[in-house]
Amino acid sequence: MKITKPELLIDEALCKANIRAMYARCIEKKISFRPHFKTHQSIEIGQWFKEAGVSKIAVSSLSMAEYFSNNWMDILVAFPANILEIDLINDLAERIELSLLVESVETVEFLSDKVLFPINMYLKIDAGYHRTGINYENYELIDTILDRINQTKNLNFNGFLTHSGNTYGCKGKEEVNRIHLINKNRFIQLKKRYITAYPNLILSYGDTPSASIADDFDGIDEMRPGNFVCFDVTQVHIGSCDFNQIAVVLACPVVAIHKERSELIIYGGAIHLSRDEVKWEDKGVIYGLIAEKLSSGWGAPIKNAYLSSLSQEHGKIKMPEDELWKYKVGDVIYIYPVHSCLTISSMRGFMDLKGKKIAVYRGLQ
Amino acid sequence: MKITKPELLIDEALCKANIRAMYARCIEKKISFRPHFKTHQSIEIGQWFKEAGVSKIAVSSLSMAEYFSNNWMDILVAFPANILEIDLINDLAERIELSLLVESVETVEFLSDKVLFPINMYLKIDAGYHRTGINYENYELIDTILDRINQTKNLNFNGFLTHSGNTYGCKGKEEVNRIHLINKNRFIQLKKRYITAYPNLILSYGDTPSASIADDFDGIDEMRPGNFVCFDVTQVHIGSCDFNQIAVVLACPVVAIHKERSELIIYGGAIHLSRDEVKWEDKGVIYGLIAEKLSSGWGAPIKNAYLSSLSQEHGKIKMPEDELWKYKVGDVIYIYPVHSCLTISSMRGFMDLKGKKIAVYRGLQ
Repeated sequence: MKITKPELLIDEALCKANIRAMYARCIEKKISFRPHFKTHQSIEIGQWFKEAGVSKIAVSSLSMAEYFSNNWMDILVAFPANILEIDLINDLAERIELSLLVESVETVEFLSDKVLFPINMYLKIDAGYHRTGINYENYELIDTILDRINQTKNLNFNGFLTHSGNTYGCKGKEEVNRIHLINKNRFIQLKKRYITAYPNLILSYGDTPSASIADDFDGIDEMRPGNFVCFDVTQVHIGSCDFNQIAVVLACPVVAIHKERSELIIYGGAIHLSRDEVKWEDKGVIYGLIAEKLSSGWGAPIKNAYLSSLSQEHGKIKMPEDELWKYKVGDVIYIYPVHSCLTISSMRGFMDLKGKKIAVYRGLQ
Repeated sequence: MKITKPELLIDEALCKANIRAMYARCIEKKISFRPHFKTHQSIEIGQWFKEAGVSKIAVSSLSMAEYFSNNWMDILVAFPANILEIDLINDLAERIELSLLVESVETVEFLSDKVLFPINMYLKIDAGYHRTGINYENYELIDTILDRINQTKNLNFNGFLTHSGNTYGCKGKEEVNRIHLINKNRFIQLKKRYITAYPNLILSYGDTPSASIADDFDGIDEMRPGNFVCFDVTQVHIGSCDFNQIAVVLACPVVAIHKERSELIIYGGAIHLSRDEVKWEDKGVIYGLIAEKLSSGWGAPIKNAYLSSLSQEHGKIKMPEDELWKYKVGDVIYIYPVHSCLTISSMRGFMDLKGKKIAVYRGLQ
């Protein structure tokens, strides 16, 4: 494996273990599994899910659905339907089982007029995160939207969907469980209310923290975690995983060493890692941690070493003196990313541990 | 111009005016102009600089130098030389006039052994920013490196280079001027000390805030601003420009409206804008401002409207009620980016005001 510039390394065995573990958890909880592919964004890694037995996925844009549409027949776009892409919606709906998310009468009216092929509709519910969705008690709006869907031949109401994104602000299992239970209990009220009229309705749930940590999923039908496939420092911080489950690191050349400030400068910056940050122990805001390099991948984080700042291509690593002397210009350092989804989206390609490239979605332009 | 998903719009006339204004400023100050192309990253936009009379550029990686190397014959890689890319260094040095940045004896020793064609060497100086570079008073290290360069046939000492990146923490012209003068006065001491031994030595300087605001460049030979070509909200915040000089906006579809919270949700998130933030007036941390849409581009920022949070694909806009009612799902909103360099690097492609695509460097993988 020859590294000359920033490369995103992926450990296939760790990744597959993460997939198997989450799938086993869903089976144990009797919930169906619809992994979110916005994290890895790769057809090739998608195959690892297929091999594990997965048959349906979520993505975060219509373009990403298009990218996966030759390989996956059941795709949910877990993002409020963008009506400006109606041509792509129709193209996809003709070829695959497409599910869309709606939260307004206007969007449903537009789709009613324009959709040429059957589409499954999920209503996006806000159960506490307050980013998007209909308030979980706004039955008036829900009923109005359902009426409009029911009047339209090609729109089929499939169920409700929520994202408990406020678990990302939690630290520790207890906090995640507390937020999860508040949101989940609000969410399942909808099932009680609508199950008689819609006996097949599905409740779709699942951020990585809840999916990894919580136990009580009574009433939930489907889980959509994404990040768990690679995990990252944020998920360790929340308590969703340990470091030995993080399946990606950014390999970065050392380009300068400043002993007087206990700092290393790496070729690896915001354009590679994104600028996502996390408050880490006594270090304040950090942009990554440093993984021990092993001949077979990577090991534990190096104590008290961290990425303290990022500019476009530069990263600045703070490291204790007794660690710093081990490095020289031209070495390669492994960084555990703070947020693997954004790092993968920035890098747009992996290298596996044998040096083979793995392509990802590059669909922005 | 048909917009269906996030698109980075560029106003060619504004961009060209920014280029002409900065070039005129350099001519007035009798400093040569080596614009930094890490901001726009585009061969096509590079042509706009050529038309203005520019003949040399700076870039932030060897890969980016490679991208521009068929169009530009004089390229400085303004980033500590990454010795792991020695093959590319030699390839470029054979074809163009290549300048590299060094700050350690180790890097120079490595290059001495491996470089096959002439390369111009700049010593990176830390005049106050403390990211990279040799302390401006560390003459011992400077002399050691110069000795090593002078012993090597293919390495030619060209001068010193600094980046006053700490102007980015300033608000207002006075503060920028104060930091600029501290750094500049430290930097030009080097010229006084080394000019006799090296009568052709160049002092290369210039971040966008100093280049836009400061007046006293006595002793400086070359300016390397980059961001000025498009500017952004951060530069308005610092005082380098006005809103009417910002030459890029991210056009984003509206996908949801939450009147009860005075919020709009756009399709446009961290993967499009990056997560760069700025503290804006009384709004706290923001991720972008909203530009008025005009038939011929964009106008002033909409008062009290701002991007208050970002996730992977979602952006949340806060907007006063008397503004919010004007929007509906399916509209397109224009966002002034907080940091145009990272937004351009994320989007990897522009659309001009006629709807024509402009390609950029996509060289990460």
